[in-house]
Amino acid sequence: MKVLVINSGSSSIKYQLIETEDENCLASGLIERVSLPVGIISHKKHGELSHKEEAPVKDHQAGLDMMLKLLLHEKHGVIRSYREIDAIGHRVVHGGEKFTHSVKIDDKVMEALESSTYLAPLHNPANILGIKAARHLLPDIPNIAVFDTAFHQTMPKVAYVYALPYEFYEKRGIRKYGFHGTSHQYVSLKAAETLDIPYDKICAITCHLGNGCSIAAVKDGKSVDTSLGYGTMCGLVMGTRAGDIDPAIIVSMVEELKLTPSEIKNILYKQSGLLGLSGVSSDMRDIEKEEEKNNERAKIALDIFADRVRKYIGAYAVTLGKVDAIVFTAGIGENGWEIRERICRGLEAIGAHLDIEKNKIRGKLAVVSKDESPVKILSIPTNEEMMIAKETVKILSEE
Amino acid sequence: MKVLVINSGSSSIKYQLIETEDENCLASGLIERVSLPVGIISHKKHGELSHKEEAPVKDHQAGLDMMLKLLLHEKHGVIRSYREIDAIGHRVVHGGEKFTHSVKIDDKVMEALESSTYLAPLHNPANILGIKAARHLLPDIPNIAVFDTAFHQTMPKVAYVYALPYEFYEKRGIRKYGFHGTSHQYVSLKAAETLDIPYDKICAITCHLGNGCSIAAVKDGKSVDTSLGYGTMCGLVMGTRAGDIDPAIIVSMVEELKLTPSEIKNILYKQSGLLGLSGVSSDMRDIEKEEEKNNERAKIALDIFADRVRKYIGAYAVTLGKVDAIVFTAGIGENGWEIRERICRGLEAIGAHLDIEKNKIRGKLAVVSKDESPVKILSIPTNEEMMIAKETVKILSEE
Repeated sequence: MKVLVINSGSSSIKYQLIETEDENCLASGLIERVSLPVGIISHKKHGELSHKEEAPVKDHQAGLDMMLKLLLHEKHGVIRSYREIDAIGHRVVHGGEKFTHSVKIDDKVMEALESSTYLAPLHNPANILGIKAARHLLPDIPNIAVFDTAFHQTMPKVAYVYALPYEFYEKRGIRKYGFHGTSHQYVSLKAAETLDIPYDKICAITCHLGNGCSIAAVKDGKSVDTSLGYGTMCGLVMGTRAGDIDPAIIVSMVEELKLTPSEIKNILYKQSGLLGLSGVSSDMRDIEKEEEKNNERAKIALDIFADRVRKYIGAYAVTLGKVDAIVFTAGIGENGWEIRERICRGLEAIGAHLDIEKNKIRGKLAVVSKDESPVKILSIPTNEEMMIAKETVKILSEE
Repeated sequence: MKVLVINSGSSSIKYQLIETEDENCLASGLIERVSLPVGIISHKKHGELSHKEEAPVKDHQAGLDMMLKLLLHEKHGVIRSYREIDAIGHRVVHGGEKFTHSVKIDDKVMEALESSTYLAPLHNPANILGIKAARHLLPDIPNIAVFDTAFHQTMPKVAYVYALPYEFYEKRGIRKYGFHGTSHQYVSLKAAETLDIPYDKICAITCHLGNGCSIAAVKDGKSVDTSLGYGTMCGLVMGTRAGDIDPAIIVSMVEELKLTPSEIKNILYKQSGLLGLSGVSSDMRDIEKEEEKNNERAKIALDIFADRVRKYIGAYAVTLGKVDAIVFTAGIGENGWEIRERICRGLEAIGAHLDIEKNKIRGKLAVVSKDESPVKILSIPTNEEMMIAKETVKILSEE
């Protein structure tokens, strides 16, 4: 089947046309600066840049229209007719408690999606724009919504309820949702394949370390805990997001420092994390370079980043009881062997022994623990688009 | 040496007169409702209630005066002259970054204490009142301040700096301080004694589970991490305090629910934790009774309480790399064998195997893990007053 995967942001559209039979990406692209005076369109055919242009992209519908023209283009295209597209898989960030699985989109689903935008005001409205444009432009092709939160909907109450007055959960839906589910699910599948363990038996701790970071405890193939919560700033230290901090600090920011909610959000989401600690950059590679120059704050930033990941791994090891694999993925996780090495110091306590030499790889699927390590450590490049395509096929086949 | 230990709260004074030679508590007492129309005074001699009365206690000085009269009383007393008291040890909640050790109190120390009350506005002023009254009533006897935070001042930066803009730490002192240090230190000492490990070699995870709860990672006898932070509500779930929650929820409480800082503090400190989850009580025993009646929320409250302690134990196991002992102490920790059993499920992953039968004890010092368990599990009654007395002797001997 040919599945078109669309990841629609507020001012960008990412797409991939995937042949799911052989997991081959036929074409992909990125449309940036949607609804700004000048947009940028980059389109790859079979992995090679085939077309790049600057042009205004009025709205999401205009963007998808340009994408379709490129997919059908004599030179840049990979299909001859729209009808070759069997289905469209859409990334949707937040499914709330309503969507515990991927779902085929109809008017009722659209309604439910629109009613839960308050949970992810920055992301869901943009995702919905992409879906609407696709339904309008290609009315005959089925659309499937795949949620970042859905994989974590298997979490038990003990993991997702906060120790607040219970009404906060029951009446206001304030609970842990978790994100990056598509990535955690994809690398769990790949880890099971690689280690030759049936998927419904694998117990893994998956570390998605990119611009956003989260970690999940996966028991028998199902998410049972994760570090992102109600919002998208807690848990691990991220590029510019703080991760876990004493909530009393926020109260003090309001009460003593007289900061407004938007100032506080700007601090927690944009000025904290690796950037706030290092004072240098939100990019791990920049900070690693600074550390080599004996920049003390760069060193402390990297140490704290690693410390928080390591502590979550320890926590989830006892949650799972038995761990088959620790998986590193996403920008930092699959490429940064230096930080993997830093994180793994001390993990011998839970039976995970890194092989320092094997670990020195970037962007490759590999087992990087010692042969005799009871808990395997893996580096696995994530592929959220492929997971969305797989989910799309699965939902259609269940009809 | 005879050390008088004073723990002075805003409307209460606890005291113990301890013979440190044989660690014997000669007399102890509690003065409640200080500066209210009617106070309550209870005084024990050699562990037996010897005197109880209701009478107005004008202020802390009047309270200490009553205490001294009881200590010297013909029938209720245990000394004949004030001069038998060799020193007074005061509990002080917050020592900030200034006080990394216990300290002999002089005018300069008093000044420093008064200047850091903003860090613990509920506790430090009351502690200072007690010190002032003691210095006034017994001007010749040395006073020693023993801080709840001091034991944790050995934490490395990686543990105590939050991933906020670095100025929050450098300019405003917003960092993790940790509390219950006196208790964590006392049970670490007792664990080392019990397991016959030199104190400067012991690696332990100490769980102080009382009305307030915190956990510490102790490496070679020194605190290297702990769960309470800048304030006293984060980390573990407590009787009425929430413990760790996504800080984004606090922002949402301000922005969407329009709650004021004092309303939020009331929720986080007084209406959350076991009480908020169970809707029944903040007392673990009440909730355990409700669980027996199949109260679903009582069960979830206990499960969440245990889950959070267990996850911190896992996290600190990898922080320490090697763990000699997991110690349970304070009201719940030393008495609640049922919750100890619940917490220890899954700790086999880090080599801690509970002995279900041995564990069925309350309020006793005992090793409750299986003989062959690589990591020992201990129940140790805490004794903060004894630790304050020991610290007092130590500081005087160093003069």
